[in-house]
Amino acid sequence: MSALAGKAAENLKKIRASKPLIHNITNFVVMNTTANILLACGASPIMAHADNEMDEMVDLASALVLNIGTLTDDWVMTMIKAGRRASDLGKPIVLDPVGAGATALRTNAARAILFQTWVSVVRGNASEILSLSGHDSATKGADAIHTVAEVAEEAGHLARELGTTLAVTGPLDLVTDGRRTLTVEGGHPLMPFVTGTGCSASALIGAFLAVDKDSLTAAATALAYFGIAGETAGAKAEGPGTFLVHLLDALYTLSPEEVEARCRITKA
Amino acid sequence: MSALAGKAAENLKKIRASKPLIHNITNFVVMNTTANILLACGASPIMAHADNEMDEMVDLASALVLNIGTLTDDWVMTMIKAGRRASDLGKPIVLDPVGAGATALRTNAARAILFQTWVSVVRGNASEILSLSGHDSATKGADAIHTVAEVAEEAGHLARELGTTLAVTGPLDLVTDGRRTLTVEGGHPLMPFVTGTGCSASALIGAFLAVDKDSLTAAATALAYFGIAGETAGAKAEGPGTFLVHLLDALYTLSPEEVEARCRITKA
Amino acid sequence: MSALAGKAAENLKKIRASKPLIHNITNFVVMNTTANILLACGASPIMAHADNEMDEMVDLASALVLNIGTLTDDWVMTMIKAGRRASDLGKPIVLDPVGAGATALRTNAARAILFQTWVSVVRGNASEILSLSGHDSATKGADAIHTVAEVAEEAGHLARELGTTLAVTGPLDLVTDGRRTLTVEGGHPLMPFVTGTGCSASALIGAFLAVDKDSLTAAATALAYFGIAGETAGAKAEGPGTFLVHLLDALYTLSPEEVEARCRITKA
Repeated sequence: MSALAGKAAENLKKIRASKPLIHNITNFVVMNTTANILLACGASPIMAHADNEMDEMVDLASALVLNIGTLTDDWVMTMIKAGRRASDLGKPIVLDPVGAGATALRTNAARAILFQTWVSVVRGNASEILSLSGHDSATKGADAIHTVAEVAEEAGHLARELGTTLAVTGPLDLVTDGRRTLTVEGGHPLMPFVTGTGCSASALIGAFLAVDKDSLTAAATALAYFGIAGETAGAKAEGPGTFLVHLLDALYTLSPEEVEARCRITKA
Repeated sequence: MSALAGKAAENLKKIRASKPLIHNITNFVVMNTTANILLACGASPIMAHADNEMDEMVDLASALVLNIGTLTDDWVMTMIKAGRRASDLGKPIVLDPVGAGATALRTNAARAILFQTWVSVVRGNASEILSLSGHDSATKGADAIHTVAEVAEEAGHLARELGTTLAVTGPLDLVTDGRRTLTVEGGHPLMPFVTGTGCSASALIGAFLAVDKDSLTAAATALAYFGIAGETAGAKAEGPGTFLVHLLDALYTLSPEEVEARCRITKA
Repeated sequence: MSALAGKAAENLKKIRASKPLIHNITNFVVMNTTANILLACGASPIMAHADNEMDEMVDLASALVLNIGTLTDDWVMTMIKAGRRASDLGKPIVLDPVGAGATALRTNAARAILFQTWVSVVRGNASEILSLSGHDSATKGADAIHTVAEVAEEAGHLARELGTTLAVTGPLDLVTDGRRTLTVEGGHPLMPFVTGTGCSASALIGAFLAVDKDSLTAAATALAYFGIAGETAGAKAEGPGTFLVHLLDALYTLSPEEVEARCRITKA
């Protein structure tokens, strides 16, 4: 799918040229890593969660990334405030529903954000994403889903139900807006041994949304770029410590041409 | 002491096989490092501090790690709530009394947690640990204690007073439950130049407690494993930056067999 | 300027010998990095923000670093409380006005800290620093200032207006107390691609103030040392990931003699 490979390269070029400001309200564990991932990509991260500067911050930003790890009620309220402002201004929003399905607080927070703001892309693992359905009967539950085709079918249903694009990441990534579905290859087995790689993927989707209005292609090309960087890092790494260091280097040094040449996005 | 060396290897094998969920309520400085240390070991970290998901989180976890660095009153209340739930469920708790003895808030917070929950292991430096005694006359104070034998004697008294296992870390680590005392060799002089190595040791003790019901052997084998990884990292490091990177790699790549061969735990 | 090169070496020696405790109330993104930077330098970092241990912490510390990234109103109140205590005790304070000028909350917070405490040094980029002026007419605004001479003139005005020393960092650093002005060369183009390098520079200025009562020379020598470490790291780095790792190693391994030999501080 050379058109999407070209799009991946184009999006990366645009980010490096325009250095879009990406506003993150995210969890304490990954704030540092996420900021470094966005900087390595070429974007400009800002982390801010004060209620009384939220409107100004959103006004300055090109995209908003909401991540509910280490959430508390007041942070969720601030996320919704920021998300509403972004929605009013037509700015893209990424939601990372960390731990949705594991506790009621997280599932409810993710659903509250989804229903009160215009989320462009939700990025999570299969379990987190499928927990977002309000109709328990409509999904089989993550444990009952094994094949990529099954995930694609369930995610497609849910994307239409929620009216958003879903990016389900794992060994093979899947992106669907309910009409179109793409799979993305890449990454490395060490990725799950570094905290915040999922959260970083969400942040990168925010950067790609800042330069690509099509949520499906923005999410897929961001994940392709991240996966390629993961492969490069994995080839050099001796463990999770060196992996993260080389991942940041790879995100920074990968040229748009190399991303295009190595991009593996496929229509599902 | 080949029995304990074998135990270290066995515990590490069990962690990698069962990937126990370790729930951390810890400080902002080390959340990222602690999560990465636990992942490198093979465990599954979760950081969560919202009062209204505390019970659910503790229910999911195999061990709870409470760390009072960057504490505030509301976090301490949440730690006690989580600790009570874990105590009710018989799940192991590690307390890291960061800065106890330095300010009244910290000393009092550490003691409140100790008295209101069933702490399996307290891990700290000699100064922090000895500040936990309610009987000032019973201990000489950290400044007056110089030899390992003196630390062992004071820590033994305190372990019996508090009814818990104490892990006093430093150039030589000492673990005592008031009846049995072990010393653990290992580590590297660069360790104190990386923030969060002590906190990470506490988190690793949590992972080892998840698979080993004997607090004494769980703490000693966790510290032995961490110390061996520190030696491996120190041999490759050119400073504290490369040290942390190699430490994560070493925790991930060390085999149970190598841990057993290099384990140096001695009865004191 | 060999006198200042000698001062840089002397300050570094004093920090490594006395390991001054540097109390940071700083943002969530950089807490870990800042602590590691201070440790690598030889100082002892403490991060603490609880209102009810603030006086005790300030009493223990040799310098206070206030950083308003990820600020909220309650943190600002705590910063002012800590700053007042430090002022009463004659302990040096560094203010890092992260994002001042970008939102009213940040500009007002930075000014409130400046007016209610005795700040020794403000460290920021030109835009942040120049936003601190209360007399809009007195400054041209950051966008209108292009040459080093123009920055020097405006910063000199502002330093006299605010009664503090200003450290304006960028490709070329400039330090002025309104009477004397110094420029500092060093650093590397990868620095802006790692989050928290500016915040880390502020923290290092805190460590240098702990051993050097002259705010101008403390700030300039700290920036010179940081810039030299950046050059060393940049020569080894393959991207921002390896850059940060080597930066920590360089801060740790640089000898006072090498810092003196490579120090480039010039009277402006």
